[in-house]
Amino acid sequence: MFEELLAQLGTERHQPLLKMCNDFEVFGCFALTELKHGSNAKEIKTTAHYDPKTEEFIINTPTVEDSKVWVGNLGKTATHAAVYAQLYTPDGVCHGMHIFIVPIRDTKTMSLLPGVIVGEMGPKAGLNGIDNGFATFNNVRIPRENMLNRTGDVTPDGRYVSPFKDQSKRFGISLGALSNGRVGLTHYAACFMNIALSTAIRYAAVRKQFGPSPGNEMPILEYQLHQYRLMPALAICFMWRNFSNVFFCNLAEFLMGLFTKDKSERQSELGKEIHAISCVSKPVSSWTTQQVIQECREACGGQGYLKANRFGDLRNSNDPLLTFEGDNNVLMQQTSNHLLSAFEDFAKTSQVPETPLNLLQFLKRFDEMKRFKLNLTDKSSLLNHKTIMDLFDWLICFIIKQSYDKLDASLKSGKDSFTARNDNQVFHSKSLAIIFMERLLIDRFLQKMSSNTDKSLEPVLNRLFFTAALYFIDKHATLFYQGSVFNGDLPIRLIRQSLVELCAELKCEAIGLIDSIAPPDYVLNTPLGVSTGEVYKASYTNMLQSSGAFDIIGDIEHLMNKTRFGSLKSKI
Amino acid sequence: MFEELLAQLGTERHQPLLKMCNDFEVFGCFALTELKHGSNAKEIKTTAHYDPKTEEFIINTPTVEDSKVWVGNLGKTATHAAVYAQLYTPDGVCHGMHIFIVPIRDTKTMSLLPGVIVGEMGPKAGLNGIDNGFATFNNVRIPRENMLNRTGDVTPDGRYVSPFKDQSKRFGISLGALSNGRVGLTHYAACFMNIALSTAIRYAAVRKQFGPSPGNEMPILEYQLHQYRLMPALAICFMWRNFSNVFFCNLAEFLMGLFTKDKSERQSELGKEIHAISCVSKPVSSWTTQQVIQECREACGGQGYLKANRFGDLRNSNDPLLTFEGDNNVLMQQTSNHLLSAFEDFAKTSQVPETPLNLLQFLKRFDEMKRFKLNLTDKSSLLNHKTIMDLFDWLICFIIKQSYDKLDASLKSGKDSFTARNDNQVFHSKSLAIIFMERLLIDRFLQKMSSNTDKSLEPVLNRLFFTAALYFIDKHATLFYQGSVFNGDLPIRLIRQSLVELCAELKCEAIGLIDSIAPPDYVLNTPLGVSTGEVYKASYTNMLQSSGAFDIIGDIEHLMNKTRFGSLKSKI
Repeated sequence: MFEELLAQLGTERHQPLLKMCNDFEVFGCFALTELKHGSNAKEIKTTAHYDPKTEEFIINTPTVEDSKVWVGNLGKTATHAAVYAQLYTPDGVCHGMHIFIVPIRDTKTMSLLPGVIVGEMGPKAGLNGIDNGFATFNNVRIPRENMLNRTGDVTPDGRYVSPFKDQSKRFGISLGALSNGRVGLTHYAACFMNIALSTAIRYAAVRKQFGPSPGNEMPILEYQLHQYRLMPALAICFMWRNFSNVFFCNLAEFLMGLFTKDKSERQSELGKEIHAISCVSKPVSSWTTQQVIQECREACGGQGYLKANRFGDLRNSNDPLLTFEGDNNVLMQQTSNHLLSAFEDFAKTSQVPETPLNLLQFLKRFDEMKRFKLNLTDKSSLLNHKTIMDLFDWLICFIIKQSYDKLDASLKSGKDSFTARNDNQVFHSKSLAIIFMERLLIDRFLQKMSSNTDKSLEPVLNRLFFTAALYFIDKHATLFYQGSVFNGDLPIRLIRQSLVELCAELKCEAIGLIDSIAPPDYVLNTPLGVSTGEVYKASYTNMLQSSGAFDIIGDIEHLMNKTRFGSLKSKI
Repeated sequence: MFEELLAQLGTERHQPLLKMCNDFEVFGCFALTELKHGSNAKEIKTTAHYDPKTEEFIINTPTVEDSKVWVGNLGKTATHAAVYAQLYTPDGVCHGMHIFIVPIRDTKTMSLLPGVIVGEMGPKAGLNGIDNGFATFNNVRIPRENMLNRTGDVTPDGRYVSPFKDQSKRFGISLGALSNGRVGLTHYAACFMNIALSTAIRYAAVRKQFGPSPGNEMPILEYQLHQYRLMPALAICFMWRNFSNVFFCNLAEFLMGLFTKDKSERQSELGKEIHAISCVSKPVSSWTTQQVIQECREACGGQGYLKANRFGDLRNSNDPLLTFEGDNNVLMQQTSNHLLSAFEDFAKTSQVPETPLNLLQFLKRFDEMKRFKLNLTDKSSLLNHKTIMDLFDWLICFIIKQSYDKLDASLKSGKDSFTARNDNQVFHSKSLAIIFMERLLIDRFLQKMSSNTDKSLEPVLNRLFFTAALYFIDKHATLFYQGSVFNGDLPIRLIRQSLVELCAELKCEAIGLIDSIAPPDYVLNTPLGVSTGEVYKASYTNMLQSSGAFDIIGDIEHLMNKTRFGSLKSKI
């Protein structure tokens, strides 16, 4: 990240430092978040005052509340920090947030340089291999050249110059360097899901418990409840794997455009759409993974709690994904704002723009969907691609209209835009963003299926598709009822009946499906997840070989004395 | 637990060992679960063959798959184990599961005794202070007297004698010694919830982020979305605290009956009802806590991930509650079976029995509820106690009838009872148990409110009541629509609108409410949860004082060499 900043936002004069980075002669870190400002990064308080006498910037942390925190590598390793600070010129004018390269530690002895208090933040719930650090600055002077000056600079005599007139546009570009990460995190989440499910589903196929008669026990995967806990998750995992691959290709196309300095309208639209997707794909994938890991851990019973089966560590490793690269709940508002603003245009013009990723195509069906009647008679009328896409298109049209109307009414009742948007989150904007993401998963999977040429795979792909789709639809059943697309008993009964039947079918293919996506045993590395199914042998071996398993308490007399009432003698 | 077993299921001859336990001269542990059998404890495979020649039992583990596992204190500390094993008399007859006291370690040196392989299972996701152990037995001989013989015994010449004729009844009593724990775990869960919410809500009241204009930031608790993430959880936490207190009193009454050897019908009914409740209160409270801790951790952003704020450890400490004392999903079937069997009686007789805890009173309204029409016009028609109780009574009558009908149809279609029950879990029996529990929370809180004499508390108690109640009702909205109690847009719109309004009201009292239930600061012990609100000072102090925060990497040259491409020199 440090090197990316130097390359993207630095200029010729930062090339020597970049080379030292590449040669591992210095170590960089990225210092944006402060103790008091995370999501609202614009309001960070660290200052950089320019002193024309010495041609230096003076970096200061106004109060300890403004300390830089969560800086990866800062705790122990970094020698230089890219510090985001509010830039002040000698005339007292604040020019907003800029980036300054601040030396932190001596590159030979690693001792702290004068004026900085830098340390490690302390243990975390996980990812303790990363030395997240904190920093406060007290009149730390750095050369004028240490400012990254691609988007704005200070002349030696202290005048601010920038190629951009619009400060907010500069802010956008400066933060732009952060957006790739979310595509990667979406992929991380899909991988974590994959790992958790590989262990839980293999164990479920082997683990026998209870049965119709004594001594005649059944694998727990044969139970309806266990199927329902794991099969929709498996289907959704395939959806995310496929989506993540497609989305990465979208990003690759965008990055190619960046490298080739493509200034076209298409490139700009593609960037906006990738932003809109990544701001909801990271949240929804990481939340889904959180829930899937938890369900898998529980589905493995007590053995799921053993560290060796990795669920505890997976949970702790996935956990920060919910927060970093943008807090999930805050981040998704970027997506809902994007959609609501597109809908506003549509409401005014009745036009749906063609965009690179076709994210708004559902709006073409908006009028049709207003008149949509679901014609459900039996399972086959439910389990076909057209009905499913109709339901999703109706759903997103319904929720976008409902959210827009509520927002519009708030504005018309005199609420300011900030308040109106905030009061529109629960049950509206947040639901809109999630439904948008789920529809995208379904849509991209359907596209993938349509390009499949192996007919023998069709039945299982359809089962995955319908299982995931019905799971989402069931979750949003209230909205279908609210909009009177569902009425009375039939639709939900048919959906839920189909869902448990699909799960029962899918369980027969579950091991084949898992074997197709699971990492090799030495990577999966869980006793319960061995691909041979010899889980008890693996679990027993693991216990026998656990470090210290057979250590003997040396001081048993002391233990007994300690616990005997009244016998604890003071040593003072 | 070991001592409880000796006291309850042992006889006079086990008194010396019990005394040694009380004097901490020996340490006991409880060995039931095996690697291959957890939930289905009846099918454990460890054997105890009686040898009349030496008047000994011979304890064996048939295969490593039948190793005892998860035995608390066995890993390092225990000298004796209470081992559950299948008892065989010399005539080759198996008399089912009995308990045998097996010496494991020498009480002086703590070395293992011959024939046992005992060790610690290895690291877990949490609770690593407990040395959970595993054990296999190879022809371990113990004296005849080591069998706990209150409910069955073997004579010196090898005949089995028992005061009970019915083996399954003996099994029930032998497992009865385990049932208290779930009442305690329900309370644990309520405490964990309390701790997580104390930190997250106090932080939310202090943490400012974004605002209507620059430099004019708002506490995050002012945001609708943040309120919705924490306020229903706060209301539900109060419900659980109240329920847990009431339930403990029910248990205390039952235990008094046990001590006084009460053999009345009432005592027996009370026992059954406590069992039916504890089999769902432990699952639902521990799941709720899992979700609340997770939401609180996320609501604290990155700081929530710091170990010092305890969410990671709370999550890991609560996690085993989902599994031990009965796997949540398996355990709840005890409750749904109890309810469905009561409903079967009711369907036949139209009589609702009076029981000590009145758990079935809702059935008295069954016919009334079949004709129930919700008359919603505005908020006041929704927010009154009668409407809420009507909705819950309708809901439980609806789901119990639906579950019963489905089960009945399965049986009539020729499915055996085992299969029919299993195929009735998802959307039916499981939902029934959860709804039963939620209705109980609501009902017990309403009873508590009716005994409140401080009128000034009424508004806030009502807010807690309605917030939790509407949160549950919203969750089950699909069922209300399925049963046509809800139709179209109005009911769900009114419920959701009221819910966000109640959250907004409740946030004004949130800190007072938290202060009334939070432990003192030195117990809560989280920087974000300090009762003074000085969270940044506390967080900064915590970082400064974190062990090793300022340690310097000694061998920087080595680090740089290591990471420089191609420069890593072999030391071989």
